[in-house]
Amino acid sequence: MPDGKTLFEKAARGIRTERTPVWVMRQAGRYLPEYRALRKTVDFLTATKTPEIAAQITLQPIDRFELDAAILFADIMTPLEGMGVPIRFAPGPIIESPIRSQKDVDGLRPLDPDEGVPFVLDALSIVRSELPKDRSLIAFAGAPFTLFCYLVQGGGSKDFMDARSFLRGDPEASDALLNLLGKSMIHYLRAQARAGADALMLFDSWVGLLDEKLYRARIQPVMKNIIQEVKAEIDRPIIYFANGGSALLEAASEIGADVIAVDWTRPLHEAVARLGSSTVLQGNLDPSALFASRDELGQEIDKVLESGMGAAAHIFNLGHGIHRTTDPDQLGFLVDRVHETSERLSSDREG
Amino acid sequence: MPDGKTLFEKAARGIRTERTPVWVMRQAGRYLPEYRALRKTVDFLTATKTPEIAAQITLQPIDRFELDAAILFADIMTPLEGMGVPIRFAPGPIIESPIRSQKDVDGLRPLDPDEGVPFVLDALSIVRSELPKDRSLIAFAGAPFTLFCYLVQGGGSKDFMDARSFLRGDPEASDALLNLLGKSMIHYLRAQARAGADALMLFDSWVGLLDEKLYRARIQPVMKNIIQEVKAEIDRPIIYFANGGSALLEAASEIGADVIAVDWTRPLHEAVARLGSSTVLQGNLDPSALFASRDELGQEIDKVLESGMGAAAHIFNLGHGIHRTTDPDQLGFLVDRVHETSERLSSDREG
Repeated sequence: MPDGKTLFEKAARGIRTERTPVWVMRQAGRYLPEYRALRKTVDFLTATKTPEIAAQITLQPIDRFELDAAILFADIMTPLEGMGVPIRFAPGPIIESPIRSQKDVDGLRPLDPDEGVPFVLDALSIVRSELPKDRSLIAFAGAPFTLFCYLVQGGGSKDFMDARSFLRGDPEASDALLNLLGKSMIHYLRAQARAGADALMLFDSWVGLLDEKLYRARIQPVMKNIIQEVKAEIDRPIIYFANGGSALLEAASEIGADVIAVDWTRPLHEAVARLGSSTVLQGNLDPSALFASRDELGQEIDKVLESGMGAAAHIFNLGHGIHRTTDPDQLGFLVDRVHETSERLSSDREG
Repeated sequence: MPDGKTLFEKAARGIRTERTPVWVMRQAGRYLPEYRALRKTVDFLTATKTPEIAAQITLQPIDRFELDAAILFADIMTPLEGMGVPIRFAPGPIIESPIRSQKDVDGLRPLDPDEGVPFVLDALSIVRSELPKDRSLIAFAGAPFTLFCYLVQGGGSKDFMDARSFLRGDPEASDALLNLLGKSMIHYLRAQARAGADALMLFDSWVGLLDEKLYRARIQPVMKNIIQEVKAEIDRPIIYFANGGSALLEAASEIGADVIAVDWTRPLHEAVARLGSSTVLQGNLDPSALFASRDELGQEIDKVLESGMGAAAHIFNLGHGIHRTTDPDQLGFLVDRVHETSERLSSDREG
């Protein structure tokens, strides 16, 4: 790395690399036996709040696979306790007192990361010191609309109708909540970068529930502001994952993120056709493909790599988190296959 | 109706009508106080299995609003008990013994509607005799992939990863299950038509979890077969709702259904642009818009109607089921507004 950039960071900055960098969402998690063993001794919340344990879990997949980036073991809900919202996991997040009025919003405070999430910052600093220099460390935050969904609904849901009704029914209070979340995530992302993160990712897990008009009117300004305010202070590539948002691709690409991460429902070349060849993409193998035969899995991996060739650069990933019942050896096969195929495609391109 | 067709049926056959017919998904349900009152005296499963009660619930929204169609009160899981799968609702469907092998599939039997769901057929016949002649009666079935999701997963899920892993990991057994479900739904839909249904609808609530390639390879043939086999015996318009499937619109439109029902994430005029102006569309107001002010709601309704003007015909509906906390008066406002605006648009078009 004579220029001080890892393969992952080059790609995230739009530089085509000799092979495609690869990591997978939820790579530090339940499909790994070493993770399950560790979690027998400590619950989820304690694991996220104990820097040494969070760091150890973060590094588990890096020890096992040739991945180009580590992503901090944490939850998108982790910083919300620091805003005054008690959360428990069962195993999904439960908010006992959902936010459903201006008064509820007024009871929250903007996140002060040093006070609210010192353990996250400490974990990042441990991981960065232990992670090989040619691997990047990704920190992340939930995007405001997705955090809003959980906070208003009170927990997980397949359609978050209570949250979406609040968004429509009380625009003032819901905009106040979105803005407060936006402001807090700006502080959170900046602090994570200062603590050692090489790249930042915004997870918008539920944004696909919105139509484009509503997204542009109510959510896009908050997202643009986050990117702008973070970038004004720190120089790190930012990845935006608008899950389920193939309908919102153009609007999502306008917020100013360096990398657009996409789910598996549409091929990467379609995203390139819609967004232009200067786009940097991350994704997008269907996590269920890891349950197919090696033959089929190999073909699906190649197809994703070929489909991403038109982008300015491509970071290989799944189109969603790896499933807890996945055979880890299938991920090992995936990483090798991404290396082989992308090196071949890259030399074909040059030849 | 000199030609024996209701407004709804004309539109479903692709004939532009003087005003846009309107009904809403889950119109017979929990947002209605009369439904909640009745359900205090009878549980959900008993209500679906008692023809007089199912008929009464089906007619509740028709008595209250100027809707153009009634949809039978039932659940997409209702016919599965007749295939040998015990199901309970809590309140979502729970399958105690999920189907996860060829042996499990072999333990199922194709549905014989007269034996497995006589109560559905009786309910349809009661509703048809009580429903005014200018209103249509819609019967429905779950599409095989969606039923597959519940049967393999064992209940609801936000991503149905166990079901999708099975689809990839055991293609033979999963295709056998899809085909058996397809065959059963053919019998079910035919029997419902004979019992009095004027139109048929296939709900594919979870098909949006599939990419287009997988849909075309594994699901589309089953869907084409259903439409073909039903149409070979009975002449009723068929509506296909591929929920979350804006990425699959072209593939979904190829199965041969008369009407494509779409969710709210993309505007109707985009569906027309993608599918052509001979397409008949149903949809697609965001159910959360019913929580907005009358002013905003009115504008959103008008936008949907205007957006649907390019289709061969349009049936107004929500883009998903009406939410249980919706104020019924908002639906009353919606129905009136659809009447007013669509009559105006229709006379503008002629003028």
